[in-house]
Amino acid sequence: MNREERYEAGLKVLNSVDGEAGQRVVESLADVSPELGHQVVAWAFGTMYARPELSPRDRQLVTLGVLTALGGCEIELNVHINAALNVGLSATEIAEALLHTAVYAGMPRSINATLVAKQVFADRGLPPVSNLS
Amino acid sequence: MNREERYEAGLKVLNSVDGEAGQRVVESLADVSPELGHQVVAWAFGTMYARPELSPRDRQLVTLGVLTALGGCEIELNVHINAALNVGLSATEIAEALLHTAVYAGMPRSINATLVAKQVFADRGLPPVSNLS
Amino acid sequence: MNREERYEAGLKVLNSVDGEAGQRVVESLADVSPELGHQVVAWAFGTMYARPELSPRDRQLVTLGVLTALGGCEIELNVHINAALNVGLSATEIAEALLHTAVYAGMPRSINATLVAKQVFADRGLPPVSNLS
Amino acid sequence: MNREERYEAGLKVLNSVDGEAGQRVVESLADVSPELGHQVVAWAFGTMYARPELSPRDRQLVTLGVLTALGGCEIELNVHINAALNVGLSATEIAEALLHTAVYAGMPRSINATLVAKQVFADRGLPPVSNLS
Amino acid sequence: MNREERYEAGLKVLNSVDGEAGQRVVESLADVSPELGHQVVAWAFGTMYARPELSPRDRQLVTLGVLTALGGCEIELNVHINAALNVGLSATEIAEALLHTAVYAGMPRSINATLVAKQVFADRGLPPVSNLS
Amino acid sequence: MNREERYEAGLKVLNSVDGEAGQRVVESLADVSPELGHQVVAWAFGTMYARPELSPRDRQLVTLGVLTALGGCEIELNVHINAALNVGLSATEIAEALLHTAVYAGMPRSINATLVAKQVFADRGLPPVSNLS
Repeated sequence: MNREERYEAGLKVLNSVDGEAGQRVVESLADVSPELGHQVVAWAFGTMYARPELSPRDRQLVTLGVLTALGGCEIELNVHINAALNVGLSATEIAEALLHTAVYAGMPRSINATLVAKQVFADRGLPPVSNLS
Repeated sequence: MNREERYEAGLKVLNSVDGEAGQRVVESLADVSPELGHQVVAWAFGTMYARPELSPRDRQLVTLGVLTALGGCEIELNVHINAALNVGLSATEIAEALLHTAVYAGMPRSINATLVAKQVFADRGLPPVSNLS
Repeated sequence: MNREERYEAGLKVLNSVDGEAGQRVVESLADVSPELGHQVVAWAFGTMYARPELSPRDRQLVTLGVLTALGGCEIELNVHINAALNVGLSATEIAEALLHTAVYAGMPRSINATLVAKQVFADRGLPPVSNLS
Repeated sequence: MNREERYEAGLKVLNSVDGEAGQRVVESLADVSPELGHQVVAWAFGTMYARPELSPRDRQLVTLGVLTALGGCEIELNVHINAALNVGLSATEIAEALLHTAVYAGMPRSINATLVAKQVFADRGLPPVSNLS
Repeated sequence: MNREERYEAGLKVLNSVDGEAGQRVVESLADVSPELGHQVVAWAFGTMYARPELSPRDRQLVTLGVLTALGGCEIELNVHINAALNVGLSATEIAEALLHTAVYAGMPRSINATLVAKQVFADRGLPPVSNLS
Repeated sequence: MNREERYEAGLKVLNSVDGEAGQRVVESLADVSPELGHQVVAWAFGTMYARPELSPRDRQLVTLGVLTALGGCEIELNVHINAALNVGLSATEIAEALLHTAVYAGMPRSINATLVAKQVFADRGLPPVSNLS
């Protein structure tokens, strides 16, 4: 595959995982670093996400763990909580994954990511999550 | 104590330390992860904060150090700078603790936390802090 | 459940997930902070890991993402790469999860975690992982 | 040099590097921690930036790397992307430096910093950057 | 004060807080970056630690919080757990401060710092800490 | 270019920048995640480092900033301090770049990176750096 074909292949994976939210991030880079947008599409999605060794659902569980732990990734968490819903994780599973991060990354990181999930769930018209033991 | 009693015990500690600000964080989680709100109250406050081995004032000094170093914790810093005032630290001591973090966490983390303190002090109608040597 | 019962319940979960490696971490804390060891067992495992909303395998995917992103968690990654194998992730899936983190946490975090996996796989006598596309 | 002279010397360096943006950060600290503002000027700029062992342009390349990797430093990145332009880095070089960080700090940190650069370039009326290979 | 006097003033503060452990860090920098050693002594201790707005004991509580949260600071934690003992914190208070960080920085950071404390307490011949509730 | 050609192109860049140290990292991944080794070579070096928009020397300044700020990257800092020398930065400039990071990332990160530089400089038989003002 040449550079353009890698981009096209990546765009299909990006759209199947992130939907419109991913596209918007790439577009926001168009007039400042189109090459970064290209690498997100062609490398991150075309090369890495496209690999069959881990399912899209499993990749989002890892991704939610990484983004929550990094902190300061609210934009990306919004994209990837949407992605997590797109690839088959339920709102309850996502809330639980973010709750689980409190053990390893502490309460503030877990709370911040959960408040992003709250916004995404509301934007998509999902009902409240009740996960009390 | 059962689960409900641990929550009630935690709520008393939470209120004595964080006041209304802590309650608002717990409430913001009610429709997305009430269990996370429960753990903040029952575990963080009911189990950890309630221990007598360290005074509430000392716990806030440690907490301010952790939250400043983590970065991206402006919401939590707002709660805990309020908490620090509630448990007996003066505005001058808080500003100094945040100044001190510059040595270990660098200027940007110290500045970001100090700007949160500026907002909290203004919200509470405190006079300007003058800590020039 | 009282405090002692929560510890016992947590110990069963800890052993089913982490095996001996988790026990060794708890024991290493015995003469400096036995309460921290208690909270790892009773809270992290007895309360958080025991929840049915997410499978043990899914929890390890999130955990690997968090620990890799945090950095400086080689001890904990060793425990949880072992745990990941214990709860049904294959060596190939673990290597892929750590490869995936490179997109979000960068190459150094991904490499460091992968080198811990290399050690764990060797300690358990697993064959080399070949994941070339 | 006495304390006041160190401040004056630092202010000259600060102005030559950061311009007005740096001044605004110092002023924002005036009523909460003027000593922190003093240390930014007198120590960071008067003592550290003033050293001849590394050029102002080189210092900004290091600074952009550090601030991008830390995360949560959008305010400081705004100041230092302006500074980078002030000391001779082109918009293309800045975009490339931030693209480069993706290798080591991951895509989200690189994207977040690049979006700050987009804002700074627009504020200064610079034309779009086209860095496609 | 001139540069040399600031160093001498800082050295007195460094020795009163960190004792020999701080000196060893400064000496280890002598043949690679003596200016960094100078700044640790003259700025961090001579200028920042010397300020009266916060007691040495309070500064160590903040420092322990920052260093634990940063991660990867085992060398510095060793110095500052020693320092914490030097300025009047008991081993039990230090263990509790590090336990407290688990709420905000997560279990791995808390465990890693506590294992450094275990080594420091053993090096100084202190008896085991028993902090079970 | 096909996959194999991208690897070969990347290997030339890797060798010109990192020398043997980079090769050793790639080889250490061969039996656990050869794909990660491939991506380091083909993507990080073949695609990103190969771009002409920033000189190799400038890329190392950014890289040193990122790796120092991340913390816990001693292995990678060793490789890239070697790389920095390979592409024309002097030991004095490297020490100064690491000193500069103290302003933004704090003293511990700066000290830890400087101690890696000390080892690299000694391994290469370089004379002591004297950078006192």
